[in-house]
Parts: sequence; structure tokens; C-alpha cells
Amino acid sequence: MENIKSYVQQHKDRFINELIELLKIPSVSADTAYSQDVIDTAEAVKESLSQAGCDLVEICDTPGYPIIYGEKIIDPNLPTVLVYGHYDVQPPDPLELWTSPPFEPVIKTTEIHPEGAIFARGACDDKGQMFMHVKALEYMVRNNELPCNVKFMIEGEEEVGSASLAWFVERNQEKLKNDVILISDTGMISNQQPSITTGLRGLSYVEVEVTGPNRDLHSGLYGGAVANPINILAKMIASLHDEDNHITIPGFYDKVQELSAEERAEMAKAPFSLEKYKNALNIADVYGEKGYVTNERNSIRPTLDVNGIWGGYTGEGAKTVIASKAFAKISMRLVPNQDWEEITALFTKHFTSIAPAGVTVKVTPHHGGQGYVTPIDSIGYQAANKAYTETFGVPAIPVRSGGSIPIVALFEKELKSKTILMGFGLDSDAIHSPNEHFGIFNYLKGIETIPLFYKYFVELSK
Amino acid sequence: MENIKSYVQQHKDRFINELIELLKIPSVSADTAYSQDVIDTAEAVKESLSQAGCDLVEICDTPGYPIIYGEKIIDPNLPTVLVYGHYDVQPPDPLELWTSPPFEPVIKTTEIHPEGAIFARGACDDKGQMFMHVKALEYMVRNNELPCNVKFMIEGEEEVGSASLAWFVERNQEKLKNDVILISDTGMISNQQPSITTGLRGLSYVEVEVTGPNRDLHSGLYGGAVANPINILAKMIASLHDEDNHITIPGFYDKVQELSAEERAEMAKAPFSLEKYKNALNIADVYGEKGYVTNERNSIRPTLDVNGIWGGYTGEGAKTVIASKAFAKISMRLVPNQDWEEITALFTKHFTSIAPAGVTVKVTPHHGGQGYVTPIDSIGYQAANKAYTETFGVPAIPVRSGGSIPIVALFEKELKSKTILMGFGLDSDAIHSPNEHFGIFNYLKGIETIPLFYKYFVELSK
Repeated sequence: MENIKSYVQQHKDRFINELIELLKIPSVSADTAYSQDVIDTAEAVKESLSQAGCDLVEICDTPGYPIIYGEKIIDPNLPTVLVYGHYDVQPPDPLELWTSPPFEPVIKTTEIHPEGAIFARGACDDKGQMFMHVKALEYMVRNNELPCNVKFMIEGEEEVGSASLAWFVERNQEKLKNDVILISDTGMISNQQPSITTGLRGLSYVEVEVTGPNRDLHSGLYGGAVANPINILAKMIASLHDEDNHITIPGFYDKVQELSAEERAEMAKAPFSLEKYKNALNIADVYGEKGYVTNERNSIRPTLDVNGIWGGYTGEGAKTVIASKAFAKISMRLVPNQDWEEITALFTKHFTSIAPAGVTVKVTPHHGGQGYVTPIDSIGYQAANKAYTETFGVPAIPVRSGGSIPIVALFEKELKSKTILMGFGLDSDAIHSPNEHFGIFNYLKGIETIPLFYKYFVELSK
Repeated sequence: MENIKSYVQQHKDRFINELIELLKIPSVSADTAYSQDVIDTAEAVKESLSQAGCDLVEICDTPGYPIIYGEKIIDPNLPTVLVYGHYDVQPPDPLELWTSPPFEPVIKTTEIHPEGAIFARGACDDKGQMFMHVKALEYMVRNNELPCNVKFMIEGEEEVGSASLAWFVERNQEKLKNDVILISDTGMISNQQPSITTGLRGLSYVEVEVTGPNRDLHSGLYGGAVANPINILAKMIASLHDEDNHITIPGFYDKVQELSAEERAEMAKAPFSLEKYKNALNIADVYGEKGYVTNERNSIRPTLDVNGIWGGYTGEGAKTVIASKAFAKISMRLVPNQDWEEITALFTKHFTSIAPAGVTVKVTPHHGGQGYVTPIDSIGYQAANKAYTETFGVPAIPVRSGGSIPIVALFEKELKSKTILMGFGLDSDAIHSPNEHFGIFNYLKGIETIPLFYKYFVELSK
């Protein structure tokens, strides 16, 4: 499979331009204002799969945004790889912090990306990483090096909870039948040190509404005499953590899987510099649960973060008002064995119970997903590790990620197969932030590494 | 002065229409988008004073919005009344809660206003109450019943701290020389029970900014490992009150004037129904400082309220982000003897000191003002009480208001004269809220009562 290198070199400009075209479409699934753009992106993905060599590509309707299904079956007796990715992206705001418009991709060099990186919303998460698989397929088909069957399932609601995907998978188990699921929607340690994500956190995302008086009030005439929904919301949120930053929701930790001292020691081997970490974020110190280090706090421990808060007068100048309502979006990252629906119920029960008389509280679950851990002795993991080792010159390190890809647990439940998370992004790629980008090196390296996964997966499956 | 009644009856439609025209101009001083409208309103006020009979009317430039000065001097040896009011209004948002557009005045009847009320932003606060004085002047001039000299000073920055007014008063002490200052920018107990505001609370209004990481972060990859500015802001705000709802800022209560048991007993005589109060706001219970009743909490006790809060993702759907910054607008109502600049400094020192490592805090003072108490044995108070007694048939009750008119303390300091707060609005008029309105009864009753104040003030001054 030597000519993959030369093929990538020969076609890299086209690979980059094709991705840039895809990034120009603002497929923000969280905001209905972009719904037509999301649809247009689905069309573009379908087209790219056909051109790459799929025999069959369908735009499958769902209760939400469509799912693109594509396949190339070369021999029913050979293994089948199911590639999952998503074509929707996070909202781009705050827009004013972008150094170039989020949907006008540009290539800029950075310290970490001397060969340049594509700056655009979705460059890394997940259009860029998803598209690596499309281009890898193109290579294998055009050079008759596809060693097995391949199926693609690309969704448009990953950033808002993949509700339609669950609906789709439950109804298409035969169609989606596979031997391994391959996803590039995570990161690796560095461009010199590849890693494979073996664990993901689950998620419970809720929105809370605190209502006090039936109308906004003059803070002079009523201040001090009625419960101020914003003050109350702040108080309720503050009470969700104790002084050791443990979460105070009764039962929250009941099913948390504690790691052994050995496992924690193994994790501690991953290269990490607290100084570099703090400098990169420009913070004086880290902050988190007592008894755990940074790399544990953001991976093997559950957390609770307010993702958004609003209420009262937020415009220019001053308004002396007591708002009738205050709102917050709150998400909890969960670890394996914590059930997201159970946690959502525990949160709702607790948050409602701590509301003082004088306000009413409404909790609306947005979405959620289970955590996941994949065994490193599986054929899929071994194949991925061999592929990385060949293209990077060093073996990959298994890491637990703090992020969530809720559908990974769903796949195991519905499709009975393991997922391999071959990520090529970097923590510094600013996914979900202004100035998201994806290194040209990473993009091309991914296209180069993926065909090797197919090769070794088939070999190891014999 | 019998014909004032008939004059009001004869001209009431014109009085109402003239006010409605004034209310159509959206003079929102807090938002620069409305700056031309604020200027236009100043012009309209100038015009109305000329038509009412002022000999001299000027639009006085200031560092901010202009101040309208008008006067009619009939005899330098007679007393002079200085009328103060403001032509700017509060921002109208939240717009969706208005039953009719805030700047398209309409007359609707309510339970409390069977004769109808004008619904519009500024109807009561303060265009309507200010305009009563213009129409009262018109009556006195046209009927040769003005018994003394009168000066008008109408500003356009009351809702944003009256910065230019202080500047103007300091520079025009001779021009503004007077024997009493008359203001209608407060309320009364009910349309059957007039009251005169004898105390006002001071105000300190600040904006706080909490900064964590230098960019928005993915809550999965960083959640639990870094200080989340929104969680931290909530925690800091929550800590500003203890479990008894006392404010925890060191030194905050040091200069608070405690009322005697007698004074509190006197206050308790004002008619008040806790049930009606709770029903009007649709709250299950009131909420406030331990050891004080509702009417004390909102008048003789200092308070701290968050007037606005924002940070992170507040749009539709869900975004799993840890925001780089979180913000809040916080105001403290102060009581006589508390110095607003000292309190602002205490707040800033304390709020900055409680920030954990991992975030930085910026506190920006917006504006403030001192509290005030007026003696009920003054000539001004007696004249006002006689006027109310004559038009309402019952004497007025002296009340302490929780609101702030910071410039009242300024007037006493700079102009060495007492202010009489003759309010005709009602608590239910929803000032600073959606659907602000002002009763036709109150508007006309004010026009009818004000000339009597002049009459009795001159008589008692002899």
C-alpha cells in the first residue's frame, strides 16, 4: 500500500479544496435559521460519496435532519466496516472572536501547524475528519485496494443529541450490519504522538427556568422584598458543588466506576505539562474536584457545568429591574455505568427540591447519552494501532476522553459491534470555540492512515 | 381656586392627547440607538413649556443629553418653586410581554383604573407625572393664579444616573436658586389614599465581568478541569447573602441608620395586605432579610439584587461550551447615611477578593446616588399635604420609598433646599416593566392638585 503516500501528495490540493467547499455551508443544527444549509450539506455529502466510489448512496429521511447512507459491497463473505461521522456543526458564536468568518475557510499557519491549518467552523468537528474517510475510500476504490465491504452513515444532528440517529439505527439494523464501526470525531495527543480514544463520557443536558414574580419589577420598590429569580438561580447553581467541588445531587455518584490505582498510574503516563496547559488557557490555576488531577477530572470523573445563563437586563447601560424569570443551560458529563436518563431524573428532582418558596422551577431535558469504554485487545483496536504505528512511526497511546459521542453506546446496544475512535484532531484545534481549525498535516495523515486500518483489520480478521 | 376643576374637565382631552404625543417618542437614554429620539423629546418638552407660559425656555447643552430649563418670574420678592422631572425612559424590553407596543400609547381600563389608563413606556415614569406640572403651569398662567415664581429643570438621563444633571446643577446654582423643589416621580398608596414620599433609598449600580480561560472551551474536553466563569459567577453572587439574607460584604451595614421601635410602629400603620401583595405578583411567599417585614425590607433596609446576568450559549438548542467570560449587572439599594461611593468601593474590594484562582474579575461602577429623608414639619410638606387633603378629601400619609432619586440628595447639597416628592403614580402602574401605564384619574388629579401646592406654599411662607 505504498502508493497511498504518493496518491495523497498528488491529489492534496483537490482534497483541501473539496473540504473547503463543504465547510462553506453553515450547517448549524442547533439553530433552525440554518435548516436549509443543513439540508444542502447533506446533498453535498451524498455527492462526495458517489464520486468516491460508493455503489449506493441514499439520503434517508428521519424525524429530523436526513442521514446519508452509502455503501460499497465487494463480497458478502468479507468483513464490513461501518464509518460514522456527522455533517452538522456547532453554532459559531461568539462571532466577534473569530479572526476570519467561520464559514469562509482560510488556511493559516500556527505554531503547532507550520504546514497550515484550515480555519472554519466544522473544520475538525467533524466535516474535516469525516471527509478523510471519503477520500480514503476514493483512494482504495480507484486503486483496487479496498479489502472489504464499507458502509457510511453520516448524520446531521450530532451537535444536538442525535435523536434521529437513534431512531434510524433502531429501524435499520440489517442494513447497518457490520463487523466494526470506525469514527474520527476525537483527538490525538500530538502530531508526533498518536492516540486512540478508548473511553468517552456520557452526557445529560438540561435547561432550567426559574420564575419569581409574574412580571419584571422595579428593583427599588420591590428589591429586598421578593425572591429575585437571578439571585435564586445563582444560589441554586452554586449549591450544586460543595467546597471540594464534589457534585451535591443525591445519588449522583452511586454508579460511578472508580478506577484502580494501577489504571490511574497507567493514565498518568500520558505526557502532560500542567504549566503548558495553564499557559495555553492563560489561567493562573486549574480548578476541579478534590482528590483528582487534571487529566482525571476531565476524563474519568463526572462533572457539572453551566453552558449558558441569562436573565434580566443584558443590554447597554443600566436598568434597575428585578426580572420575572432567569434561565440556564446545564450539562453533566457522565462516566461509564452512570445512566444519563437516571442522572437527568436525579438532577430534576434535586434542582426542583432546592427552590425556595417564592419561585417556581422548570427543568427541561435537552438530550443525553451514555459513557463508553472500548477494550484495547480487540481486533479493531489492534488494526488501528498498527495503522498509526506505520504512518506515525510510533504506536498509539490509549486515552480516556472527557468528550461524549453518545451514539457509540447506542451502536453497541443496537448493532452489537465495537467502535474504534481514530481521531486526528488536536486539543488546540478549538472545536466548539471561535477559530476552530484542522491541520493540513492531520487531514492528509488521516487519509493516509485510514486505508491501513482496513488492510490490517481484514488481515487480523482472517 | 375653584375653577381648576372645571378647567381640567374642559381641557382634559387635549391634556391627554398632548401627553400621548410625548409618549410616542422612544426616549430611551440607556441605549444609544435611541439618541436622536431623546433629543427630539427634549425639543418637544421645550415647546410645551413655552406654550404653557414660561417667559424663558432654554435647551441647555451638557456632556450628555440636554437639560430643559424654563422659568416664569413674576416677582423676585416672592418665593420660587423649582420643578424637576425627566423626559428619558427605561428600555422597553422584554418587548414580547407588552400587550400593546410601548411607544404606541393606548388607553385601556383596568380594575384599578376604571376611568382608563394610558399604556406606554414612560406614561408614569416620568413623562406623565412631569407633564402634570406643565399643564398646571398652563392653568395658573392663563387664569392669573400663579402666586409665585416657578422654574423648571427637566433632564434626559435620570434612568442612567443623572451624570449630566450633577454637572449642570454645580454650574448653575444661582440660576436654579429656589425655596423648594417639587418632584412628581414617585407613587402614592392608592387613588383613595394619597401619600407623600419622605424617604428614598440610595443606589450603587455596578457591572461585573468574570474571565476564566482565554477562549470558549469544549465542556467535554475541559469540563471539570478548569474554573467555569458562569459557575464561579453564580457562586460569588450566591455568597453575597447569608442564610438570613443579610448582605455579607464587610462593612456594608456599618453606617445603616436603624429605626426606633416607635418609627417602625408608625410605618406599620400604612395599610398593607400581604395576601394582596403576594396575589398581585403571583408568588407563593415573600423573600427577604430576616427580622424585617416586607414594607421594611423594601424601604428602610439596604438590598443587593442582580438586575441582569449573561454568559455562554443562550440561543436555541444546546451547545456544550465552557464560556470564557460571564457577566452580571448588580445594584444595591442604600439607606440614608450609607455613602454610595463608599459602598461601591466596599463591593468592588470584596467581590474581587472572593474570586478563586483560575478566574479574573473586573468590576465597573455604572452610577449611584445617596439616600434621603425629608422632614414632615417643613412648609413644603405642609403645603403638599393641604393640597392633597383638599383634592382627595383625606390627608396624605408620609411613606419611605424603596426607590432612588439620587439627585434629591444632590439638590440639598448644591442648592440648599428641600425636595417635596408629590407622587401620583401607583405601585401597580408597572414602571420599569412591560405594560407601564398611568391612570387618567391620577394624571388629571395631579394637574388639579399641583396649583394648590403653590397656593398653600406661598401662604405658609408669609
